[in-house]
Amino acid sequence: MAAAPATAAPIVVAPAQSRFFSVPAGAKLIEPAEGSPGVTFPKGFLGSGLAVGIKESGRPDMGVLCVMPEWRSSTVSAAVFTTNAFAAAPVIVSKEECHRSHLVGLVANSGNANACTGANGLTVARAMRSSCAEALGIASENVAVASTGIIGVQLDAGFMSAAAGRAARAVAPGGGGDFTRSIMTTDKYPKESAVELSLRGGTIRIGVCAKGAGMIAPALATMICVVTTDASLDASQAASLLHDAVNSSFNKVTVDGEMSTNDSVFFLASGASGVQVAPSDIPLFGEALKSMLLRIALMMVADGEGSTKIIKAVVRGAASDQEAARVCRAIADSPLVKTAMHGGDPNWGRVISSAGAALAGQSLPNSSLRLCGVQVVAGGAASRVAEKEWGTLVAGMKQPEIEIELDLGVASGEGEVFFSDLGHEYITINAEYHS
Amino acid sequence: MAAAPATAAPIVVAPAQSRFFSVPAGAKLIEPAEGSPGVTFPKGFLGSGLAVGIKESGRPDMGVLCVMPEWRSSTVSAAVFTTNAFAAAPVIVSKEECHRSHLVGLVANSGNANACTGANGLTVARAMRSSCAEALGIASENVAVASTGIIGVQLDAGFMSAAAGRAARAVAPGGGGDFTRSIMTTDKYPKESAVELSLRGGTIRIGVCAKGAGMIAPALATMICVVTTDASLDASQAASLLHDAVNSSFNKVTVDGEMSTNDSVFFLASGASGVQVAPSDIPLFGEALKSMLLRIALMMVADGEGSTKIIKAVVRGAASDQEAARVCRAIADSPLVKTAMHGGDPNWGRVISSAGAALAGQSLPNSSLRLCGVQVVAGGAASRVAEKEWGTLVAGMKQPEIEIELDLGVASGEGEVFFSDLGHEYITINAEYHS
Repeated sequence: MAAAPATAAPIVVAPAQSRFFSVPAGAKLIEPAEGSPGVTFPKGFLGSGLAVGIKESGRPDMGVLCVMPEWRSSTVSAAVFTTNAFAAAPVIVSKEECHRSHLVGLVANSGNANACTGANGLTVARAMRSSCAEALGIASENVAVASTGIIGVQLDAGFMSAAAGRAARAVAPGGGGDFTRSIMTTDKYPKESAVELSLRGGTIRIGVCAKGAGMIAPALATMICVVTTDASLDASQAASLLHDAVNSSFNKVTVDGEMSTNDSVFFLASGASGVQVAPSDIPLFGEALKSMLLRIALMMVADGEGSTKIIKAVVRGAASDQEAARVCRAIADSPLVKTAMHGGDPNWGRVISSAGAALAGQSLPNSSLRLCGVQVVAGGAASRVAEKEWGTLVAGMKQPEIEIELDLGVASGEGEVFFSDLGHEYITINAEYHS
Repeated sequence: MAAAPATAAPIVVAPAQSRFFSVPAGAKLIEPAEGSPGVTFPKGFLGSGLAVGIKESGRPDMGVLCVMPEWRSSTVSAAVFTTNAFAAAPVIVSKEECHRSHLVGLVANSGNANACTGANGLTVARAMRSSCAEALGIASENVAVASTGIIGVQLDAGFMSAAAGRAARAVAPGGGGDFTRSIMTTDKYPKESAVELSLRGGTIRIGVCAKGAGMIAPALATMICVVTTDASLDASQAASLLHDAVNSSFNKVTVDGEMSTNDSVFFLASGASGVQVAPSDIPLFGEALKSMLLRIALMMVADGEGSTKIIKAVVRGAASDQEAARVCRAIADSPLVKTAMHGGDPNWGRVISSAGAALAGQSLPNSSLRLCGVQVVAGGAASRVAEKEWGTLVAGMKQPEIEIELDLGVASGEGEVFFSDLGHEYITINAEYHS
């Protein structure tokens, strides 16, 4: 179980050209060719990723991300955690025993979620954290811990503590890619993105990495996301920016309150650019941050197990935004809708049926539905679709990105959701993933 | 499009030996060898099923079930319909324009759900009903109508009316099997069951047939069920018995309020046995009725598209029965749980994660989980499972019926749900089912 260097898997940034994603004016998307597009792209961060032997495959499974010593005192942070009733030990430790607004380091492992592991699990999470903090020379309360992998399998505290220490001692500039690879599970590729943004005070950078796939059941896909910036922020700004960005990205694919045992999002602002985000810069910074998280969220959808498409469902005209979100969820969770999308079949009746089930007892005489831009329902009934439009619809259904627009015709509630299709590979991966 | 006789598909009664099903003492299950086990097994009913050309396959697609003329005046009935906001035209007509407590006939078609079809859909449903009623010599208000199949495709009123008339003129004693086959869609086999019951006043019979599969997404599987009895009931008894039986059967697989555009359950009591159900007989009659509907519901689960197993999830110790039902639903709807069950893998972490997501924000230190009778979680954490027990668990997971028992350890709320696994065939059927 000697530490092995992380293998250099190619970094694929997909979906690079999603029409569901754009960066705001004033922001420049950083492509891989221009350097690591991940969490060590912003100034002031170090990263590592090692194969310590948790995964039988020998792939990287322990990583550390931290702020360079000289920027630790100016760093502010924020974090968002799962609300799952069986929250994993690392979530409990990070949430309850850390300075959430002043994290300067994070130790994470894949291969074991350290969930449903009781008192020993807490011991393991605390040991990982202490060992990492000690190696970095900082206090334990300033280090968060995260885990992903199998649930209900006990880890050895001594082993995990030693491994966390090794990963902490291995941190290096530009090590964000290694960190990203060390948290992967069923991900087909590392998920990273970065952007450069011109603010009044100068240029700042935002970087993001995440693990997460299997978005067929977003509720159950463990998601770990780390966001870094070298902008200088105050703690309340950071918390509010992260909250808004998560709501506009992950919560549109994972749906709030339906989270796995281990979902965690960390946001660290090193201030190493020397540029303070002025109040008037906040909207632009917020847009750029949202765009990064939405891009990562779309990567997760695109990397859904067996996924071949990204589908965006927009619901308008609902009684409330909450109702619209509920209908979005019903459509996105319907295996009949997902398989129709996989097959590229314009079987819109499945959309209507799933939406109608979520709106039990209502009458929707003014509802309408567009699929791939073609109106298929108007006034609550099937539209006559001209032959040319039917051709557009059939061709649209073969595309990698599909849009569903349902207007309930009741009031002005709106919502949207992104989801993947359901194909054979999902079954293969998940029926054969043995515990 | 000439009427063709229904092909005589073999009647497979499955799961004949489910351990999740039993008939009450005093009831005798009727096996196919002893005669049609369906809706014309009770006295006083006639049935038919024709291939009228709605389905391109040429399979039976129009059927009529009715009470023999001499029993029509004594017949009482009850019906339960979908609450889907896009309820189909036949549902609207049956629900709003019929004497729900005095139905003596039912005309049903497969191959087209007549849903999302607006004013023309209502015209078609009324035309089917009128034509059937006229051929049977009864008033339209005493005939219900049901449809199942593709959504959003218009039917021709003249064609459907003529076909309904032909089916009505074809009714015959013992025609229940033909009726059952005429409402099949993706069902692998006709779903029928019957029971003989000794009451104080004599022997009565209960017969049931249904169409429905694809229970992976119970919300979206159109379910049509017809229950007959030759017992003599009053209308309020019939309504309350049906309500209770549906809650103990279909609502445990379909979950209340999450229904397709066309779900309908009809219950007709001809009184042809001459035996009145006395108030003291009601509990036994109710149990027998529930057992018939549960058997049919389990057949639907077993016939789930690509399904190879029936899984029963029991949730106890919840804050309320409603909460227990919600957790049951979360487990049953989780594609990760379903695929683990398909693969026969004791990956109980997926059960915990899906349940925990439905219980956001709670802490469950006293929760426990048993899988195939083996305790895998106690006190909220993974149990040490002895090698012998692990063997029991692994062997249990290979069985066709699997039981999950989750105790939340909070209060005394309880619930249960039956669901199917998720396998490749589901994808094949649903991604390739073209509109």
